Amino acid sequence: MPRHKSVAEARPFMGRKVPAYELLSEKALARIEEQADWILQRIGVEFRGDQVAMDLFGEAGAEVNGERVCFEPGHVRELCSTAPAEFQLHARDPRHTVTLGGKNVVLMPGYGAPFVSDLEQGRRYATLEDFRNFVKLSYSSPWMHHSGGTVVEPTDVPVNKRHLDMMLAHLTLSTKPFMGGVTSPERAQDSINMARLAFGQHFVDRHAVMQANINVNSPLIYDHTMSGALRVYAEANQCVCVSPAIFAGAMGPLSPAAVAAQTLAEAMVGIALAQLVRPGCPAVFGSFHSTMNLRSGALTFGSPEANMTTMALSQLGRRLGVPVRSGGGQITASNAPDGQAMQDSVGAMWATLLSGGHQVWHAAGWLEGGLVMSYEKFVMDLDHCGAMLTLLQGFDTDPEAFGQDAYLETGPGENFLSTRHTLRHYESANFEPQISDAGPYETWAEQGALRADQRAAACWRQMLTDYQHPKMNTGTRTALEDFVSERKAAMPDEWY
Amino acid sequence: MPRHKSVAEARPFMGRKVPAYELLSEKALARIEEQADWILQRIGVEFRGDQVAMDLFGEAGAEVNGERVCFEPGHVRELCSTAPAEFQLHARDPRHTVTLGGKNVVLMPGYGAPFVSDLEQGRRYATLEDFRNFVKLSYSSPWMHHSGGTVVEPTDVPVNKRHLDMMLAHLTLSTKPFMGGVTSPERAQDSINMARLAFGQHFVDRHAVMQANINVNSPLIYDHTMSGALRVYAEANQCVCVSPAIFAGAMGPLSPAAVAAQTLAEAMVGIALAQLVRPGCPAVFGSFHSTMNLRSGALTFGSPEANMTTMALSQLGRRLGVPVRSGGGQITASNAPDGQAMQDSVGAMWATLLSGGHQVWHAAGWLEGGLVMSYEKFVMDLDHCGAMLTLLQGFDTDPEAFGQDAYLETGPGENFLSTRHTLRHYESANFEPQISDAGPYETWAEQGALRADQRAAACWRQMLTDYQHPKMNTGTRTALEDFVSERKAAMPDEWY
Repeated sequence: MPRHKSVAEARPFMGRKVPAYELLSEKALARIEEQADWILQRIGVEFRGDQVAMDLFGEAGAEVNGERVCFEPGHVRELCSTAPAEFQLHARDPRHTVTLGGKNVVLMPGYGAPFVSDLEQGRRYATLEDFRNFVKLSYSSPWMHHSGGTVVEPTDVPVNKRHLDMMLAHLTLSTKPFMGGVTSPERAQDSINMARLAFGQHFVDRHAVMQANINVNSPLIYDHTMSGALRVYAEANQCVCVSPAIFAGAMGPLSPAAVAAQTLAEAMVGIALAQLVRPGCPAVFGSFHSTMNLRSGALTFGSPEANMTTMALSQLGRRLGVPVRSGGGQITASNAPDGQAMQDSVGAMWATLLSGGHQVWHAAGWLEGGLVMSYEKFVMDLDHCGAMLTLLQGFDTDPEAFGQDAYLETGPGENFLSTRHTLRHYESANFEPQISDAGPYETWAEQGALRADQRAAACWRQMLTDYQHPKMNTGTRTALEDFVSERKAAMPDEWY
Repeated sequence: MPRHKSVAEARPFMGRKVPAYELLSEKALARIEEQADWILQRIGVEFRGDQVAMDLFGEAGAEVNGERVCFEPGHVRELCSTAPAEFQLHARDPRHTVTLGGKNVVLMPGYGAPFVSDLEQGRRYATLEDFRNFVKLSYSSPWMHHSGGTVVEPTDVPVNKRHLDMMLAHLTLSTKPFMGGVTSPERAQDSINMARLAFGQHFVDRHAVMQANINVNSPLIYDHTMSGALRVYAEANQCVCVSPAIFAGAMGPLSPAAVAAQTLAEAMVGIALAQLVRPGCPAVFGSFHSTMNLRSGALTFGSPEANMTTMALSQLGRRLGVPVRSGGGQITASNAPDGQAMQDSVGAMWATLLSGGHQVWHAAGWLEGGLVMSYEKFVMDLDHCGAMLTLLQGFDTDPEAFGQDAYLETGPGENFLSTRHTLRHYESANFEPQISDAGPYETWAEQGALRADQRAAACWRQMLTDYQHPKMNTGTRTALEDFVSERKAAMPDEWY
């Protein structure tokens, strides 16, 4: 049975000590920024059905024409300048509070899958129980810094009530940061009201305690649901993460350069809107992008072109001075948690983290282009999250690291295993994954020749068995439960 | 059936256009170099049973004491300075000649496995037929630039005759560069003699046409077999690749810094010996290193500590001015071509290539810590080699890349799939892997729900079916075959 580290052992938050990789030259980055300006000036962005947004942009000096808004070069970037380069996202347990931006890295589970799968029960629609399971698993892992948002869609709950159950799960089953509902401005407001019950109204007004996933309806469209939710969160001084969603060749031109430029243009406009609503409101420069097989139309993930776009966007975000939610993560189009899934996922994760992404959605569990959260892949991905976070710490080159005493103790041809230097450090020298098996073939074969995904099945079940509820005072819990009951009772079920 | 690119479609050789990642600071690198100097001065290196080497070092001013040689700080680095920073390794087909060093990347198959496996026949001892198969597969792939050396051990051939059959296979079944025999100075000489038959004596004296894998018997030992083979290749002006072999904590102290320093020290001494034998002789700064589970003793691959060591060694090699054979590659301890195998392999490959490694052994097929060459993993790894070589090309930021005409043709909310820009570029926009499946779950399930390794099984078989012998003139072929027959007849079989 693979061991797993409990939340108690968690290193709560890890900064990056190694440099970010700079894929593109200054000149190439400037060209992409010029193209973003060209898009914003010549084509513009539409805010459909949101007159408030139009008015805010008009007052700020943009050219508003019906629902379309265009900007002089540099104007949107200027409007983004009040967004903080670094800020805290407060958790219910202060030990889990994270900082977004700077040298910090925040990993999160997958988002939005309507299906789940595990090796025993197969692929099926996700339920609220699955949602709660993944919140528990993220809480239990030292490598997830954040509980995510719609970790899976709880399809057994009416659409208009899901946000209430999801918020309740995030607030009671975990003490890590989370995302609130965004599927309508009213649901956004419910989420903020529940956060106020848990954290206190005064605290929430002054601190970001939750994050909203604002998806751009790419190319170049914000619908009123998203821009409305954005305004609700910004008014409440909560974090808005603005993520264009571009498949190269479909929602934008097919090159990495074009996708990077359009992502920058679209995201900057949303961040600018948040700043117009409340200057200084915490914002994240998000992206969700990938490639397609342009012959078959199949969406592909972890491709070299998508990975390069991810790396370029990390650089562009640093230049904008806003924390980056990377379009990478451990993503794949594979239908099984197999070798392809890990080739795609690991490559995308290296692109994400080495280039300096700050916040990584979809860092665990993602399968089938995001349609499925796989229990087995979730724990396999956790191993790689731990490995990458270890790598981002770099290594020491102080005298103790070189172990000169070990050479003086041994000599050419001799073994270092029993030197005092090895004995001093062997327990903490290396990252230890949970699922990996490096034992001999014969032992492995005797134990059933289990693949990594088969070994992973035991691991996530054990994690759920070992899970322990975090504490919450009874008054707060009751207030949250009452809020959910009352709001549910006030609305008929809606299933669309 | 997955398609595969034929050798005719090969991009024969690919340079790197993106910058190398610099993990360590100047200060950290200098500390590691100081530690290498400390090892060479205070501990020294032993050349067991090789008086010629001792005499060469003594004449060069080193301190020789019995079989041990010690050096003043900076002396070995100075002796390495005649090694070329960049040189060509000539192939029988000049289109396959590669350059080692500079901005060039040369990928090669696994080396040295005594076993092979495939999903149908399972795990078994490797034979000469397997050896020939892997030479054919490397020849057939556009992503392998080099045929490797002992791709697998042909265990059905007597030990003292294997090098003859391996050389014959490399010279006749492929036209890519290769490695010669090193298991004794006589076998090294046989290899060089065969190369002279194929390339002409005059050509071989003036050009490197083969490479020798000189393993250091780490810690700090060269045995006479290896140093003897090194001298034979260096005298013939052929390329010597000197690779220390260090598992952190066993053959050296357990930290990445210590492994990097010891690798540098050991490799520099071998490169220096080659330069003393023949100044200007082409050499490669090699490494083979990894971590262990220090509780169980199991060897681990693709760990974050090993990957950081790989990245540091790429930097140290650039500073030495000698091409780097990376200690990374697509390596894993996994016993199956599963998710773990690909997590390990892909991570190690990113560390290798992003840090600027020039030559990558074990880029395809490696399983079980190198004990096995897997046919299925071989072709899965090829896909990732192609993806990484694509990524190393970077991307364009010229006006055509941005597709401004496509924006003028469409508008916010519209689809770019049918724009003229997409139609101009869709055929070549994205790297296309052979094994990956990005199709819908339903189709995948109907087609048998095959994992990546199961799909790979069809691919390598098709590649072998489609393989076509490269041309060789009859006289050369006969001369090589006669040489092999005569040498075999002159020796009784030895099986140890």
